[in-house]
Amino acid sequence: MKMMRVSIVGFGVVGRGVAQVIQQKYDHMKARGIDLKVVAISDIWGTVVDESGINLNDVLEKAKSRGIEATDMSGVQMIKEIDHDVVVETTPTNKETGEPGMTHMVTALENKRNLVTSNKGPLALDYKKLMDLARVNDVEFRYEATVGGAMPIINLIKDDLACNEILSITGILNGTCNYILTRMAEDGLPYEYVLSEAQDLGIAEADPTYDVDGIDTACKLVILANSIFGMDATYNDVTVTGIREVTSDALKLAHDEGYLIKLVGVVNKDILSVAPRLVPIGNPLSIGGTLNVASIQTDLAGEITVTGKGAGSIETASTIVGDIISISKK
Amino acid sequence: MKMMRVSIVGFGVVGRGVAQVIQQKYDHMKARGIDLKVVAISDIWGTVVDESGINLNDVLEKAKSRGIEATDMSGVQMIKEIDHDVVVETTPTNKETGEPGMTHMVTALENKRNLVTSNKGPLALDYKKLMDLARVNDVEFRYEATVGGAMPIINLIKDDLACNEILSITGILNGTCNYILTRMAEDGLPYEYVLSEAQDLGIAEADPTYDVDGIDTACKLVILANSIFGMDATYNDVTVTGIREVTSDALKLAHDEGYLIKLVGVVNKDILSVAPRLVPIGNPLSIGGTLNVASIQTDLAGEITVTGKGAGSIETASTIVGDIISISKK
Repeated sequence: MKMMRVSIVGFGVVGRGVAQVIQQKYDHMKARGIDLKVVAISDIWGTVVDESGINLNDVLEKAKSRGIEATDMSGVQMIKEIDHDVVVETTPTNKETGEPGMTHMVTALENKRNLVTSNKGPLALDYKKLMDLARVNDVEFRYEATVGGAMPIINLIKDDLACNEILSITGILNGTCNYILTRMAEDGLPYEYVLSEAQDLGIAEADPTYDVDGIDTACKLVILANSIFGMDATYNDVTVTGIREVTSDALKLAHDEGYLIKLVGVVNKDILSVAPRLVPIGNPLSIGGTLNVASIQTDLAGEITVTGKGAGSIETASTIVGDIISISKK
Repeated sequence: MKMMRVSIVGFGVVGRGVAQVIQQKYDHMKARGIDLKVVAISDIWGTVVDESGINLNDVLEKAKSRGIEATDMSGVQMIKEIDHDVVVETTPTNKETGEPGMTHMVTALENKRNLVTSNKGPLALDYKKLMDLARVNDVEFRYEATVGGAMPIINLIKDDLACNEILSITGILNGTCNYILTRMAEDGLPYEYVLSEAQDLGIAEADPTYDVDGIDTACKLVILANSIFGMDATYNDVTVTGIREVTSDALKLAHDEGYLIKLVGVVNKDILSVAPRLVPIGNPLSIGGTLNVASIQTDLAGEITVTGKGAGSIETASTIVGDIISISKK
């Protein structure tokens, strides 16, 4: 039995999902030889610690009413001082400074803790620094959940397509934009109407900039560029156009010619681009709803396409826990 | 640098593909810390051995004119007597007896050689025996290429979806049937005409039974049932209907109602079935040509769909070499 002591830094939608999945899958993982315990949880309200394993039921219940009894230990202090194996960093993405995620991640790696994250900011800002720190400190750093939520892509390429050269990746990597463009196309509705509907449904944020202006997709492309293509790219290297200017007339005209319009990200050694593009109906990328999809062009295996849910608390958490399981097998 | 000494048993389309990929990717793998050498190749004509590494260019060239200079050592003898790390078994699938693959595989495992294969027969006949042998002898047994060729599915589920329970897998796992049904639907052509065309193109065998009667798909389902669902199934547990009775009229009627007809395999704890089924146009399974596709229903990550080339010498070989790389990392 391998003991894995985990901390969760950032106890919002994804962090709570991780706690829920670890609790729900405790026996499933134990049957596979992994005794996975959460020993610390930190958020802006402080830190909860129990080195014998936090009662996750209890903390999740209390979190609903903001009734968590926490010490005023910060996330950084916790990462340094509490003895554990893996830091799960799930604070919100900040593409300007990467904080507070960047400091948490650097602290985790410098203190020789393995690191798993869904937080794109630090990776889009300084991927190389983080990977170098992981190497120097001889720990694992995994971030499958940063691109495509529950849709496997980074580990899929590194493990399953290991003998291939990756020529290009083309994908729809933002579920909010996919939802908006799908609804506009299917029902001839205007952008503003569908955006407002998406906000009511919780599919779009109150401030939708991050999604509709292509920023989220661009951050994901940067992570793919660095991790798959060995580039040293940052957000500013991406050419970005969002979906605000896409009209339902344009969608209708495209449809009459056998095309959809999707917010498509493309990354290869020469291109880093996010823009609305025509996708032929029937093409593997012509998927609707809030789904994400990526087509991976390889030199030997041809084209591999993968589709899955790009967001969601439990979906994203399942990917994070998958990364923890991978680390436990090292 | 990790030295991996490999043998190839069965030097037909797939076996030669493996030699070609290993030769082509020698530097790519060396850069990743793996020194991969083929030390023996066996087929019905005998065995070629070079413990310092066979000149693959030379053997591939000579194979074209059947000019390989081989000793009369059998595959079984070679597996036993030549010191090496991984046996690649690529003889043709035989679903009646599993031979000669079954004997090669048993010999490999009993002699503590790791094993990688694309040969479905032995796994569809007695998966449990082979897995038990691998466990008892403490070696790796990987068989990603048996299902879906270059389309990742088994390792994807075991690694990337490790914390999920798999509820069901639904897929199009035979490229020949997909091609025939796609051509019949798109051009209103009769079955016999398209079958003959597929034979001319090398997409269907001279005796197409194995593909069009659903036998190939059924063998793949058995492998998924055993490896993913922990069942102890064999070919006889699958309910199988092939595509011979599908008419172009039926395809047209379906299309008018928004459906395609595909040869669909379904596997979960209660069902093991291959049959022509209606697939809604726009569904992730509604793909054409010779592609393979699998939709994986999970409890946490939702539905993950993966599409790729289900056959081809280099494509299948790239999956086999991927499995060898995975073994080298253990």
